[in-house]
Parts: sequence; structure tokens; C-alpha cells
Amino acid sequence: MARQRISHETGAIYEFSPEMEPVTTVSDGARLTIETRDSLDGAVQSDADVIDAVPEEVNAATGPIAVDGARPGDVLAVEIEAIRPAEPAGRVVTIDGFGLLDGKPGIEAASRMTPIEDGSVTFDDVSVPLAPVIGTIGVAPQTESYSTLVPHDHGGNLDTTDITAGATAYFPVFQDGAMLAMGDCKAAMADGEMCGTGAEIATEIDVTVSVVDPTGRHRRPIVETDDAWKTIASAERLETAAELAHGDAVDLLAAEHECSRTEAYMLGTLVADLEISQVVDPLVTVRNVIPKTYLDDPFELPVA
Amino acid sequence: MARQRISHETGAIYEFSPEMEPVTTVSDGARLTIETRDSLDGAVQSDADVIDAVPEEVNAATGPIAVDGARPGDVLAVEIEAIRPAEPAGRVVTIDGFGLLDGKPGIEAASRMTPIEDGSVTFDDVSVPLAPVIGTIGVAPQTESYSTLVPHDHGGNLDTTDITAGATAYFPVFQDGAMLAMGDCKAAMADGEMCGTGAEIATEIDVTVSVVDPTGRHRRPIVETDDAWKTIASAERLETAAELAHGDAVDLLAAEHECSRTEAYMLGTLVADLEISQVVDPLVTVRNVIPKTYLDDPFELPVA
Repeated sequence: MARQRISHETGAIYEFSPEMEPVTTVSDGARLTIETRDSLDGAVQSDADVIDAVPEEVNAATGPIAVDGARPGDVLAVEIEAIRPAEPAGRVVTIDGFGLLDGKPGIEAASRMTPIEDGSVTFDDVSVPLAPVIGTIGVAPQTESYSTLVPHDHGGNLDTTDITAGATAYFPVFQDGAMLAMGDCKAAMADGEMCGTGAEIATEIDVTVSVVDPTGRHRRPIVETDDAWKTIASAERLETAAELAHGDAVDLLAAEHECSRTEAYMLGTLVADLEISQVVDPLVTVRNVIPKTYLDDPFELPVA
Repeated sequence: MARQRISHETGAIYEFSPEMEPVTTVSDGARLTIETRDSLDGAVQSDADVIDAVPEEVNAATGPIAVDGARPGDVLAVEIEAIRPAEPAGRVVTIDGFGLLDGKPGIEAASRMTPIEDGSVTFDDVSVPLAPVIGTIGVAPQTESYSTLVPHDHGGNLDTTDITAGATAYFPVFQDGAMLAMGDCKAAMADGEMCGTGAEIATEIDVTVSVVDPTGRHRRPIVETDDAWKTIASAERLETAAELAHGDAVDLLAAEHECSRTEAYMLGTLVADLEISQVVDPLVTVRNVIPKTYLDDPFELPVA
């Protein structure tokens, strides 16, 4: 069956809210192609387009898409098959008041177009491998609303390099239909997203969505790569995000290995790397890697 | 020429201080085997040896070793050729008042011996690859003294998984002779060292030490892996450590690519991953990865 195409022109949100209405409803197992615009809605088309301040609306997320049968307590699996640039260049942008080195000597507001050619992103005369990432992806939250600039337990602006082709992102379902939305893609981005953007770009994303009925309870996003499960948490400080992500990992390791939380914590200190997703959004994001060698399937464990 | 052997029995420190005296002086280019004891000085020899509080003295660092010809402004290169366990088991230890999940439900003080066999570290019935890391390594600081529990610009308790066999660690020389010391090795450890230890173990470390006369000025440690240079910074908060490590990376990228700091910052957001070393020592440690594709040699650049 052909993929169903859903465009940002049909619907896009700047806020993930508990009560948001879907632009369409798809079946469990649906194969979709999702068109996204760039995070700055096309405002930067040349190096001369310098941005004064973070716009009130950024990171348009195409959707929301209701998935038939998704109910609170379920987990929505988003298998990412491909992310294709939909324009010939991305752009890296620095904005006053935003970014890890904001206000430091020599750091100014600037924009730089990054043409894409033959599998590379070009920054001046430097070639960087094209490696598209979905920056903002999530579902309707439980009670609060979150701007698409902010990451939290519903997903949102996670800016996580692992959320890329070949990976599957999992989100807790808080509302009927889950209400998936995504956008804010980057043609390339390093862990940290230090200057506040990657190479922001419009894309077409091929995904398959499916509803998982987990054995336990899941509060936050998880991403599955070829060889690992990664718990993801966002908070005001990196330390707190690390504590939440590792707390989730310890729960999973304790359930998998049928041991105490202390024992899982001790095993975790040997095998479960902490990683930084981003340090610039109003909340920051950390992930905790659990290699599949030590964890078979987080959704078949009796975690509470 | 045979390696010169230096044991913790000859000399070990619990504090890196500006004025510390060497136990020995070696030549520039010397090949050394350094014997280290475990971070808890052998206090944990069975699972029943539970530790009440972080001891006043931990992380005994064998040395200090003066390197002939090292002068302030130089960089000391420590090429790590091998790290061999010197006892049949390591140990993972949790201590009340210490560690990322300290005080959380189900987290208690405990010790667990981790026998080493056939290239693996065993935690209960789980096998983890043996991958020894030097936890504490550094030189005499510029003005302040630092306990071996604390990392800072002189190195110290960096707990960085990249400081392992095959890597070269570089430290700014602040005092004549540099005054290298190291210890606190782990048989295995994940990025983060979440519970406060890895699998702590006594070792023998083969290194070659040499003095680099850099073109520019270097304030903090750098580690060189097969394919990357990683700037390392420690601070009270992960955000601050990230800012320092990335600031150093931006300086290096700007010098290498002869561009502005803003341009280097924009390139960095595409290529220079932030990584977490540890989140538990009194100061926390972050590193910033610059793939060698984008940086040839940090010590041949006119950084200020």
C-alpha cells in the first residue's frame, strides 16, 4: 500500500497540548511520508538573513496525527525509515540570547547557508556528512502544554541525534490517538546543538507508526538504535535530566536482571553511558544508553 | 631500553599541589610502567566490606614524576600503551551521600566484587568487556591545590573513559617538571560513572611521557583518540563544563580554519559532539569531540 502523505500545509503546530485536535487519523501500522518545513519557517534564505531574536513561533511540527487505537498507557512506536532533504540547502543560525556560548567574546548573531551535495553538507569549504535528524517529535502531553521549542516527557524539541533514519522513537501515549507531530529537522547536527541550531532544513520523512501495549508503565521517550535502547529525559539542568534518564535505565535493568535497584545502579555504572542531546533549549536533554546485550525489550518488563 | 618502573609504594599523593616534590625524575621520552593501587586503598575485598562515607583520602595517585625539561607553558603528553589489572577482581562501590541517584528509592550503600576472567569483568552473572580506564591523572596545578577526588584544569579525577590504552592524554604544564601522577583505575566504567565508581582496580600502566612545546597556549587537558581530539573541562555544573570545553574547541576550530569564533561555533554545532565524562565528583566533567577530519593538531595552532 502506498504511503499516506501528510504535509505541514495540511496542519502544523507550535505547541503540543493535551487537547489538540488531529489533522488526520491513521491506522495502527500506517506507513506515512511526512513533509516538514524548516524550524524558522523559511525566514533564512541567505547569509544576509540574520535573526534578531528567537521567534515566538519556531519548530513547526507537522500534524497532529491521530493513530487509531492508541490509548493512554500505551506507547507509540515511530519507526523512522528515511529523512530526505526537501530543499537544496540547510542553514546554521546563531541568535542573540540563545546558545551555549551566547554573549562570549567574538560570538555574534549570524546565518550561514549550508548547501547539500553528493551526501555532504557544505559549511564554507568544509564538508560534513549528510546525516538528517528530527529535532522536534512528540505526542499530546498529559496535562501541561509545551511550545515546540521545549522538550519534556511527551517528546517535543528533543534535538537528539539518534532520532534518525534506522531508529525507532517511542513515546508514552497520554491522550487517545497519541497525536503525533514532528518537524525541525537538521541536515547535520552534533550532540549538544551548541550554537542553538543544526543545519536546519525542510524534509520528507518516511515513518511507520504502531501502537505498543507495554507490560509496564513508561513516562518518557525512548529511542531504539541498532544496538541500544536509550532513555531520554529533559529538565532545567543537565544533572537533573541525567538523574531522570538514569533512574529510568536503572528501573529497566533491575526488571530485566531481576535484581535490586542498587544492583542495577552498580551494573549501570559499568555499561550505561550518559549522553548529551542538547544544552540550548529552555529545558536541556540527556539520554542514557543501555546496550541491547544488557536489555532485551523495555516494553516487555514489569516496570512501574 | 627497559621501562622504568614506578610504584605507589615509592610514592603516592592524595592532593595535587603546585609545590609538590617528585619521587623521581625521568627523561623526556621516558618509557614507564606505573603501578597504581585501587581508589579505596584495598578497603573493599569482599561484598561484605561496605563503606560508610567517602574516605578523607581516596584515589591515591602514583607519583609525582618530574619530567626533565618540562616548563610552564609546555604541554605534557602521556601516551598510554597498556593498562593491566594487577589483581584478580575489581569492585563497584556505592556510598551514602555520593553518586547520581544518592538518596533515591531503593538505592543503598553496597559493595560488589567484580572478578576478571578471559577479558571480561563479571558483575553477578553479567559479563562486561574488560576496558581499563585511568580515573585520576594530572600534573601540579598553577596556584590552588586539589584533592585527588576533584578534577580541574590540571587533570585530577577526570574519570574519562577515553583515557585508556591507545589514547594520549595532554596536560598543560604549570610547574617545572610537570609532576605527573596517576591512579584510580577502573576495569570497566560507563560515561557518567553514575554510582560514583567504576570497577575499581589496582593496575600496571605502560606509558611514554614527552614534552610538547606548543605554538599556542593550552589551559586544560586534551585527550587524543584514534580519530578525534577531545577538549576536557570540569566545573560545578555540567552546563559550565560544556561551555568551557566547547569554548576551547571553538578556539581550536577558528585557528585551524582561519575563521571567526562565530563561524567556528557554527561549524562546531555540526561536527563537535559534547560528551559526559562524569557527573559525581565534587566537580563534574564534560568533553567536546573534534574529529581529526576537522582538526589536524591542536598544539600547532596559534590559540591564545
